[in-house]
Amino acid sequence: MIYKKTFGTPEKFVPTAYAPAPKAEVLAMPDELAEKFTFSVGRRGVKLTFPLGPDTAIYGFGLQMKETNHRGNKISLRCNADPNSRTGDSHAPVPFFVTNEGWGMYVDTARSAVFYCGSELNRGLHASDFEAYAESEFVDNTRDLYADKTHENTALTVEVPLAAGVDVYYFTGERIVDIVAQYNMFSGGGCLPPDWGLCNFYRCCGRFNEDEVLEMAESIRAQRIPCDVLGLEPGWQTRVYSCSYVWSEKFRNHKALLGKLKELGFKVNLWEHFFVHPTAPVFDALLPYSADYYVWHGLVPDLSLPEAQEIYAAHQHTLVEEGVYGFKVDECDGSDFTGGWSYPDCAAFPSGMDGEQFHHLAGALGAQTLMKAMGDTPTYSEIRAMGALAASYPFVLYSDLYDFNDYLTGVVNAGFAGLLWAPEVRRCESKSDLVRRIQLVAFSAQSLVNAWNYDHQPWLDFDAADEVREMFETRMRLVPYLHRAFKRYRDTGVPPVRSLICDYPEAQHIEDEYIFGDMIVAPIAPEHSGREVWLPAGEWVGYFDGNTYTGGLHTAETEKIPVYYRRGEAPEEAPVTQYLPFDLA
Amino acid sequence: MIYKKTFGTPEKFVPTAYAPAPKAEVLAMPDELAEKFTFSVGRRGVKLTFPLGPDTAIYGFGLQMKETNHRGNKISLRCNADPNSRTGDSHAPVPFFVTNEGWGMYVDTARSAVFYCGSELNRGLHASDFEAYAESEFVDNTRDLYADKTHENTALTVEVPLAAGVDVYYFTGERIVDIVAQYNMFSGGGCLPPDWGLCNFYRCCGRFNEDEVLEMAESIRAQRIPCDVLGLEPGWQTRVYSCSYVWSEKFRNHKALLGKLKELGFKVNLWEHFFVHPTAPVFDALLPYSADYYVWHGLVPDLSLPEAQEIYAAHQHTLVEEGVYGFKVDECDGSDFTGGWSYPDCAAFPSGMDGEQFHHLAGALGAQTLMKAMGDTPTYSEIRAMGALAASYPFVLYSDLYDFNDYLTGVVNAGFAGLLWAPEVRRCESKSDLVRRIQLVAFSAQSLVNAWNYDHQPWLDFDAADEVREMFETRMRLVPYLHRAFKRYRDTGVPPVRSLICDYPEAQHIEDEYIFGDMIVAPIAPEHSGREVWLPAGEWVGYFDGNTYTGGLHTAETEKIPVYYRRGEAPEEAPVTQYLPFDLA
Repeated sequence: MIYKKTFGTPEKFVPTAYAPAPKAEVLAMPDELAEKFTFSVGRRGVKLTFPLGPDTAIYGFGLQMKETNHRGNKISLRCNADPNSRTGDSHAPVPFFVTNEGWGMYVDTARSAVFYCGSELNRGLHASDFEAYAESEFVDNTRDLYADKTHENTALTVEVPLAAGVDVYYFTGERIVDIVAQYNMFSGGGCLPPDWGLCNFYRCCGRFNEDEVLEMAESIRAQRIPCDVLGLEPGWQTRVYSCSYVWSEKFRNHKALLGKLKELGFKVNLWEHFFVHPTAPVFDALLPYSADYYVWHGLVPDLSLPEAQEIYAAHQHTLVEEGVYGFKVDECDGSDFTGGWSYPDCAAFPSGMDGEQFHHLAGALGAQTLMKAMGDTPTYSEIRAMGALAASYPFVLYSDLYDFNDYLTGVVNAGFAGLLWAPEVRRCESKSDLVRRIQLVAFSAQSLVNAWNYDHQPWLDFDAADEVREMFETRMRLVPYLHRAFKRYRDTGVPPVRSLICDYPEAQHIEDEYIFGDMIVAPIAPEHSGREVWLPAGEWVGYFDGNTYTGGLHTAETEKIPVYYRRGEAPEEAPVTQYLPFDLA
Repeated sequence: MIYKKTFGTPEKFVPTAYAPAPKAEVLAMPDELAEKFTFSVGRRGVKLTFPLGPDTAIYGFGLQMKETNHRGNKISLRCNADPNSRTGDSHAPVPFFVTNEGWGMYVDTARSAVFYCGSELNRGLHASDFEAYAESEFVDNTRDLYADKTHENTALTVEVPLAAGVDVYYFTGERIVDIVAQYNMFSGGGCLPPDWGLCNFYRCCGRFNEDEVLEMAESIRAQRIPCDVLGLEPGWQTRVYSCSYVWSEKFRNHKALLGKLKELGFKVNLWEHFFVHPTAPVFDALLPYSADYYVWHGLVPDLSLPEAQEIYAAHQHTLVEEGVYGFKVDECDGSDFTGGWSYPDCAAFPSGMDGEQFHHLAGALGAQTLMKAMGDTPTYSEIRAMGALAASYPFVLYSDLYDFNDYLTGVVNAGFAGLLWAPEVRRCESKSDLVRRIQLVAFSAQSLVNAWNYDHQPWLDFDAADEVREMFETRMRLVPYLHRAFKRYRDTGVPPVRSLICDYPEAQHIEDEYIFGDMIVAPIAPEHSGREVWLPAGEWVGYFDGNTYTGGLHTAETEKIPVYYRRGEAPEEAPVTQYLPFDLA
């Protein structure tokens, strides 16, 4: 069930104002539930509190890469492309969370809202009221201090900066997956990418010219490493950064290149971002619809305005007409901490939005704009920012961070919040680094090698073409299975990739395994040759070894990635091909 | 010169409202300077812009540990005890910066102000106005992208959240040190610690009882490692965290202990924080003066209120009367990202402040409160948070981070903003890690080994007592020199420890050397046996090797820390003793 309550007067620029129509019923919040909230508005904005139980665990908040259970933490949902601490900063912050106690909450805001996931209210008690505390244990070690997150009077405190009100949606459901699925249906349902999007991606070196790109494509085919999508990085344009969106001299015969790549079965994806260089054909047209700051000398178009979306999309559509099948939208994630790579929070946009709001909405608005550019051509694209209510966009997140465990945590967490995330493989330090990363990415929402800064295939450094081929062939085999998982995402909201905790409440402390379709994946980190795996009750079959496993813990020592399906639920498989036809939707 | 301009209506709770009386003249800002600012107030708060030149470098913003020149960056001055990225987050954020072009700026706010140090304004130009840009270089590599921070129309943008106005102080001076010195005099002048505070500190294991503390003290004396201050960690109290401020059973005969330590020449420093446990004798008295949230079940006293300062200080004064010479004030730095270790920004304090403001003022207010507790006893204490206008407090900052280069950057940066910082030595990974860290800390504002979680002296792991003794003896020798440097800090504002750039504009790219008194220190990192050293023009003498060096670059290969004084300016030295008398002020 989904219950809504409006507190005060919500802002105009909120995610629901720009999201697809919900595919879930929303009921008015009953009074006995609404009364559990305290609500106040002041100069700072909205403050809400809501009681937490002693064991309430809290999951979600978008693409969080440092922790799974946020109980006790302060989560400040700030857009930041370098989210290297557990502050809540993220490429894709989402003001939605689920608990282990049958409920979740979405706060409809495009502000950098702050969630204190367990703050303790001072209710004015005197010392004499605290006998229990007086007898509490003396705590002088970090372990106990960190664990000591639950107190009497503990509440969730939510601060929504600057707002005079906010809509709060309260979700109930038996398991976490039931709650998340409802959130995704409320977001318009999950996306269903074309089948070729479920195959493998390779992004070429940004310094390549058209001959080098073609050579790379032919080399991939010669090695018989299945690959459907070839990405071109900034160098296809005359000017970056900001972007001209015009084919450069290095791609003088780009139409011929696109034709040859099509013959080889490659769908082309183009890197770009939304910052518009003065030489871009759309510069003057976008000028009246742009913010009062530049980024890299480029306009920041207000993509919340239909006019701006139209102008931007119309130009990108000319690229689609030439034979482009998707985009990688970079730097739209409030990369301002990278070194001035974005517009200030206080930037003014013609719609009336400020920079803070635009940071939070840029991912969804950008995806909408590029969907317009795609027209009737289906896509499975990449984007570096996303926000709330984003399940319906066929855009996968990526990051400049690169720690294996962060990437795994991203895989586990993205599914809590209607996001798709690719733990892309870039440069690797060793064969095992490469192989373990390839295994992880092949069992993620998007199977992607990104060699943007690398003039050869990363697997050549370690003579690992066989291992990559095997995993990419596995991915090809699993396309029908993945297709079915995404269909379910579209129709019911169940995320194709999600935390184990979503389906198995008893797995609360298993933070490094996840569900792929309905299989269980327990990736092994590059520095290890095996790991402990926990499986839910029942009988399971090893996807690679065919062995039988029963619920509980076992040790997996293997060069493969441990993957399990429930006996009787073997994934349907397709024959391995090097790529899929273009016209599969 | 210092010029002040009031824009709009400033807030009530700002650093100047709680700072000592300025010891510098402040003039009204001339119109031609004031006109360079744009100022606006909106729902978000104050927005200021100020033009930047193409080569303006920007230093300061408090204890920043990731970068020295912030040009091009977004610096968000948020309190955070885990500032492990270059976002501006800090234990001690300070809204003051200096430039390499003869000016600096202080924005008088206790908000988490945001400084965009080079944002580019969109002035509505059309594509045809951009011929210069059209011919600009194609940039597709990270190095050039990061370097590309300067554009036409580049401005500093400052956002002061929620405020309806702000006082801005503009400083001019020939060199950076001249500007910083004025800022420090405006802050009330630098502190002058007692001479024993300039000697060496050792913090004992938090699990120790009184016998173990005494044993540790005797062991330090037996090894003849000079040490003046012995710190007791949380375990001296009956209850932590939060704090009871009452001697525990483990220190049943604490008066006898204090007496014996005094006989051995040790001044005792006590760990505590401001979160008041229900069993603390002052709990009920502080209740009406406390915020509406607890931290660790403890009250958060509003130390901006004289009543709260008085109650808190009076109890701590009983400890001083027993023979305590200082405090280490932990966790007052908005450790909320550590896992709920603080109060929310939206907490309400009885004074009318909110949590955000209190986070920024807590360091200074806490220092004031403990100065009251000290009464006539001079101190040189430790504190984990500080803010603006703090030069006069004899409190040194420390951190839970531990990267050597971060610590060195902290040493370099603290002096830009009226802060003192100790790159304290804790557990070490190798002998060279220990020795290089001891060298760094001995040439910092506070020579401190912190073995709070370590039941023996860290140097025993590596048989390095000789190296520690030698550095701590060096520190003892330098006390008269340091005393003079601090006297100058008090009387003229010149920081005793400061970046090379402060005095030598030509050293703009030397970010890993600093000035100690007037000597130049070029620390060697644990993983290296030497380094390149740059010296200003003139003739220099190696402090340890006595060799002559001339300005420019040379390679220093040495087991010592490279330290140089200008020929003719050899530091005055004291004889080495194990400790100084108690009554030196």
